[in-house]
Amino acid sequence: MDESRAGRVALDMDIAAKLKRNGEGLVPAVVQQYDSGEVLMLAWMDDEALRRTLATGRATYWSRSRAEYWVKGETSGNFQQVKSVALDCDGDTLLVKVDQTGPACHTGTHTCFDGRELRPGTA
Amino acid sequence: MDESRAGRVALDMDIAAKLKRNGEGLVPAVVQQYDSGEVLMLAWMDDEALRRTLATGRATYWSRSRAEYWVKGETSGNFQQVKSVALDCDGDTLLVKVDQTGPACHTGTHTCFDGRELRPGTA
Repeated sequence: MDESRAGRVALDMDIAAKLKRNGEGLVPAVVQQYDSGEVLMLAWMDDEALRRTLATGRATYWSRSRAEYWVKGETSGNFQQVKSVALDCDGDTLLVKVDQTGPACHTGTHTCFDGRELRPGTA
Repeated sequence: MDESRAGRVALDMDIAAKLKRNGEGLVPAVVQQYDSGEVLMLAWMDDEALRRTLATGRATYWSRSRAEYWVKGETSGNFQQVKSVALDCDGDTLLVKVDQTGPACHTGTHTCFDGRELRPGTA
């Protein structure tokens, strides 16, 4: 086995050992524009979606509604080029920093959080 | 009923109508430092945690491990002063922008994502 491939397999096992999945085998992935810091959306990954994301550099999620893997932008063209993925302290959330092409939201807005902001006390 | 209180009740019902909770009655809350844009952590809220957060201006979550409400910072002093809360397009995720006192993570790190970053292709 060539060394780069061996390295990859080892890291995958390292990540897999740290991941704490929910009852459906999924972890939430917070998706953030890498340079502006905007939070674009939240999606879900299982081990295979994370593996594909790291292997291809294109953010790939598990669609809970369609029960299938979903390369973000595959139909819309609004891909997410992945810059980095970090696991949180508990291993149950991923932070995926991406460079987003076009709007992140399927509704056409820049992020999925473009609605009205509620403020404490004035709500 | 005085008008400001009536307004509050109406908005609560508006939010409640839009929220899509998981099987446990919870939605994930992405917590972001309002000025730097850093993603600090992910926590969970039910309707009551969101109501308390908006009423008090202090981020309040539902602890799944302890099965109780949890005012972030109540024991550590590392409170989160809430600037705004936004619902995503599907109503199943909250983005909570806060001003974090001290480290956000219970491990003492600045955010809960301060571990090693994985990069596509080099993983």
